Amino acid sequence: MSNHCCKFRKLEPLPHTSVTFNDRFWSPRLKVNREVTIPHNLKMIRETGRLDNFLKAAGKMKGEFRGFFFNDSDVYKWMEAVALSLATHLDPKLEADLNEAIDAVAAAQQPNGYLNTYFTLREPDKRWTNTRLMHELYCAGHLIEAAVAHFNATGKRTLLNVACRFADCIDGIFGPGKRRGAPGHEEVELALVKLYHATGETRYLKLAQFFLDTRGTEPSTFLAEITNPDEKWDPSVFQAHLPVRQQFEVVGHSVRAMYLYSAMADVYAETGDPLLLAALDKLWANMTGKRMYLTGGLGSTARYEGFTSDFDLPNEAYAETCAGIGCIFWNHRMLGLQAHSHFGDVIENTLYNNVLSGVGLDGASFFYENPLRRRNGGKERTPWYDCACCPPNVARLLASLGEYVCSKSPEGLWIHLYAGCTINADVNGVPVKLTQKTDYPWSGSTEITVSVKAAAEFAVCLRLPGWSREQVISVNGAPVQFANSNGYACIRRRWADGDKISLKLGMEPVRVEANPHVEADFAKVALRRGPLVYCLEEADNGRELFAVTLPNNAQVKAEFKNDVLGGVVLLEALAEMPDYSRWDGKLYREATARGASHHKMTAIPYCCWANRGAGEMIVWLNSAE
Amino acid sequence: MSNHCCKFRKLEPLPHTSVTFNDRFWSPRLKVNREVTIPHNLKMIRETGRLDNFLKAAGKMKGEFRGFFFNDSDVYKWMEAVALSLATHLDPKLEADLNEAIDAVAAAQQPNGYLNTYFTLREPDKRWTNTRLMHELYCAGHLIEAAVAHFNATGKRTLLNVACRFADCIDGIFGPGKRRGAPGHEEVELALVKLYHATGETRYLKLAQFFLDTRGTEPSTFLAEITNPDEKWDPSVFQAHLPVRQQFEVVGHSVRAMYLYSAMADVYAETGDPLLLAALDKLWANMTGKRMYLTGGLGSTARYEGFTSDFDLPNEAYAETCAGIGCIFWNHRMLGLQAHSHFGDVIENTLYNNVLSGVGLDGASFFYENPLRRRNGGKERTPWYDCACCPPNVARLLASLGEYVCSKSPEGLWIHLYAGCTINADVNGVPVKLTQKTDYPWSGSTEITVSVKAAAEFAVCLRLPGWSREQVISVNGAPVQFANSNGYACIRRRWADGDKISLKLGMEPVRVEANPHVEADFAKVALRRGPLVYCLEEADNGRELFAVTLPNNAQVKAEFKNDVLGGVVLLEALAEMPDYSRWDGKLYREATARGASHHKMTAIPYCCWANRGAGEMIVWLNSAE
Repeated sequence: MSNHCCKFRKLEPLPHTSVTFNDRFWSPRLKVNREVTIPHNLKMIRETGRLDNFLKAAGKMKGEFRGFFFNDSDVYKWMEAVALSLATHLDPKLEADLNEAIDAVAAAQQPNGYLNTYFTLREPDKRWTNTRLMHELYCAGHLIEAAVAHFNATGKRTLLNVACRFADCIDGIFGPGKRRGAPGHEEVELALVKLYHATGETRYLKLAQFFLDTRGTEPSTFLAEITNPDEKWDPSVFQAHLPVRQQFEVVGHSVRAMYLYSAMADVYAETGDPLLLAALDKLWANMTGKRMYLTGGLGSTARYEGFTSDFDLPNEAYAETCAGIGCIFWNHRMLGLQAHSHFGDVIENTLYNNVLSGVGLDGASFFYENPLRRRNGGKERTPWYDCACCPPNVARLLASLGEYVCSKSPEGLWIHLYAGCTINADVNGVPVKLTQKTDYPWSGSTEITVSVKAAAEFAVCLRLPGWSREQVISVNGAPVQFANSNGYACIRRRWADGDKISLKLGMEPVRVEANPHVEADFAKVALRRGPLVYCLEEADNGRELFAVTLPNNAQVKAEFKNDVLGGVVLLEALAEMPDYSRWDGKLYREATARGASHHKMTAIPYCCWANRGAGEMIVWLNSAE
Repeated sequence: MSNHCCKFRKLEPLPHTSVTFNDRFWSPRLKVNREVTIPHNLKMIRETGRLDNFLKAAGKMKGEFRGFFFNDSDVYKWMEAVALSLATHLDPKLEADLNEAIDAVAAAQQPNGYLNTYFTLREPDKRWTNTRLMHELYCAGHLIEAAVAHFNATGKRTLLNVACRFADCIDGIFGPGKRRGAPGHEEVELALVKLYHATGETRYLKLAQFFLDTRGTEPSTFLAEITNPDEKWDPSVFQAHLPVRQQFEVVGHSVRAMYLYSAMADVYAETGDPLLLAALDKLWANMTGKRMYLTGGLGSTARYEGFTSDFDLPNEAYAETCAGIGCIFWNHRMLGLQAHSHFGDVIENTLYNNVLSGVGLDGASFFYENPLRRRNGGKERTPWYDCACCPPNVARLLASLGEYVCSKSPEGLWIHLYAGCTINADVNGVPVKLTQKTDYPWSGSTEITVSVKAAAEFAVCLRLPGWSREQVISVNGAPVQFANSNGYACIRRRWADGDKISLKLGMEPVRVEANPHVEADFAKVALRRGPLVYCLEEADNGRELFAVTLPNNAQVKAEFKNDVLGGVVLLEALAEMPDYSRWDGKLYREATARGASHHKMTAIPYCCWANRGAGEMIVWLNSAE
């Protein structure tokens, strides 16, 4: 990645290319991502005119701009996914597709570096007049991220040069002594930090910081852009209600929020500004303590795709896939700043539940929203969206999954995610290979083999998941004492080639309850096993799932079923359904002792829901003494 | 009322003037209705230009039409309320106000009888071009109802003549051999039957029947009016999805539905068409068995102010006041057709809960919606609405309340509502006075004194409320056997002057449960005492009312409190709130045995809610073994 100073970063991420998966959970999903999702995205991008918009803006094709004004960003996210994928898996066809897209993008760039096909084609004289809503900077951010990924993957500057020219164009407009401003949809800030890492040009870092510093300060540059005096403007939807260092609650549009906090972490990593870290800690505590779904989903309302108020977590949630992805970005950065397992817990939880829910097992059907309850007639997966932010976003996250498995520090290696894979890293320049052998998340046993050329002393630190009741760790068959460092079991020793670490995490199914301030989950329980949240689907359990009651003493059995949903552990229990008889057409009656009938209940991992057609789904079940 | 044939009507309503209230529940409310609500309505009608629209249409005032296109109807409903009120309570000032309004209305009538100030002032060439949405017939119906009430109250034809001329105008346009059509918002049908009763002109009855017969038949006259081919048109919102005789589920806009079914009952009463009655029975069973709130509220969605699907009864209900009023109209007619107490039960329940909730204790603040749950920040009462259908509707219902107390038949008198009052009636021409002495609904004991000039044999039939567990009846202190005729205790004997009937209804507070198909109320109970549904308010119980749990064995005590809400019976119990401690900022955790703390819970009658400022309210409480 970057070889610039990271003086305040405690953990340094490994590039995603250092990890090779070979398990039965992730490997097939990543294969589907490469072979189905990424080509499917391109197909839809082409069919919907998103690539043509660049050719039109370049004067190479006739016709008008098509689609939403921010459609360029979908192309860029797809390009980033391809670049990330090519870095681990060569694919000449995909590389040719990417190069064709790069040519189109480069051709659409204006002589002054400006690049946005909507404005070039539709409203050339309106550039930069509505930074609040019109997403020029947002699109620029995704261009930059794609360019950096392409540069990192190939060493080629074809796209990076385009991105730099556009970044320079932006830097020529915005900044101290130039125009005050900030993006209505955050994204360019974190991208500019990446561009700084890729190029070493500090002006990009400074511009990112400038955007952060301007956001939420008076006079509001957003307010100044509003021409309709009757427009009701809520700056909190844009996280522009307060200067960023004074923010303490996660508010507004969830994706915007996650990208903002990611950028704040990035800038903190470079500057060490303690006010940024203090704000991030408060925001993180508010999000995880009061505004996050059990699945890691973020956003309680569809109205502005965002957060509402503390503990307001209706199960017909918004929980946008992109917000979950942004949450992983942010927590990965937080993990870099403060090696604490609770950031890893959020990454794992969001990844295995909210984000995986966003893409069907077929790799070509998606959810924009990931609710914890689907009523009869609720939304189904679709192959695309007019606002198609999520499909390419999930593609780029999965293509870079290796990045989230392990980090390094001068002390050693920090394993965040358990998965069958090999990890190639170095500790202070000494090459180390770690081989994880596990059937995670179906099994809680992981064996990690250390491969070194010569014995070397360093630490291997294993995240102790917040969900696990007990952890047993041994090295070469002998129990080891380990230091618990902020939720990581740090085993420091002189490792010999072939040393084996064994980690056993209890994987019994557990009932989870929500804080009693959460109305939607009051007196209910959800089932979880390891990192996976479970749900009931109509396909297994019939309708009116809200009426299923799981007695507190009902035994919940886990069993792997090879023939269900590509192979999953199902949870089964003897639950209860109400006695519907003797109501005689009545709607209300004097309350009686409640009769109940047995209901053989089958729960599936939430990440696999909605792969068997329409039907009800529920996560939170009634509990009963 | 009418002296025309009622061959299929089993019970004949008494005019509202036959009943004089003298109790401590209704008397003060009816006084407030006369002295505050009705003048307040006039004030708002004047301030919002609703009366001026008539003067403008008459050419007596300059200016444009103001407000919604259906604003005439609010004036008419207010006029009806005044006429009904004047019939029981002389008030020269109010009578002068009414006469002034009658003059304005009459002056606005066009030479051909047409009368609608919106079309006359704004779109004179668009008359009758959009019967689906533009409410000309709806406004006509309210004009007719006001005119009949005025005629009945005063014997004057000043407004009746206006109504007849407009009805004749309509009759000249619509009908067999003329134009096919039906009103988009039902109302004129039931009004035309009233006009037929007032005038004896059968053409009005035939026109009402024509509108019913046309509704929902092919080709759709509504569809033919739609000019925008992209408009999505759902005929069920207008109860136009099926011919009325084939309808079997209550659907669409709830107020429209209630007025339609009322008219169907009216036409059945005249024609005896068995298909109409069969449809009404099915609709009634569907409504009361699957689509009605515990409070009698109707309408689960604000989207089209109407019904959704069976058992879909979210507690943040729409439950429009006008729909409750319409429901009383319909059930009163059903009671006329089939003397069965379950219609009386619906009237009582809807009146005491959903409808009374619609007007504040001050008589000058209203609810359009009457939900069973108000969250923090939910809607408050307001003095008026731009769409002001409810405030004058509740005024006219309360002004006519006497009509709902008692009916007659050749067999005798049928008491539907218990309230301290005198009832002057006749049985087959013999004058009978019944005096109810009771503190209903606070007490379940009612003493009814029969006053006759000479002893006479007839039946006094007492409704045995569906909510009451046991009823003890005696005459002159001696227990009597009575025949239970469809839920009425029919006491047939030779009554002597001064005979006293005593009815004792158990008034212990009870827990009510909802059919387990109702998701919103699953595993919950509501409290009811007599006809009154109870609720918890923030003023007594703090916030997060969703977390209150009422143990099944908790004793619920009832006590009359003179100083609360004008004097009400409160219900008190030792309930539970969850243990919020030891959560340590966590949002989710492995489920534990649930701790609980005691909560001294106070419930108030739902009809009195939202009279102590903003705050949470809840009807359905968690129950626990």
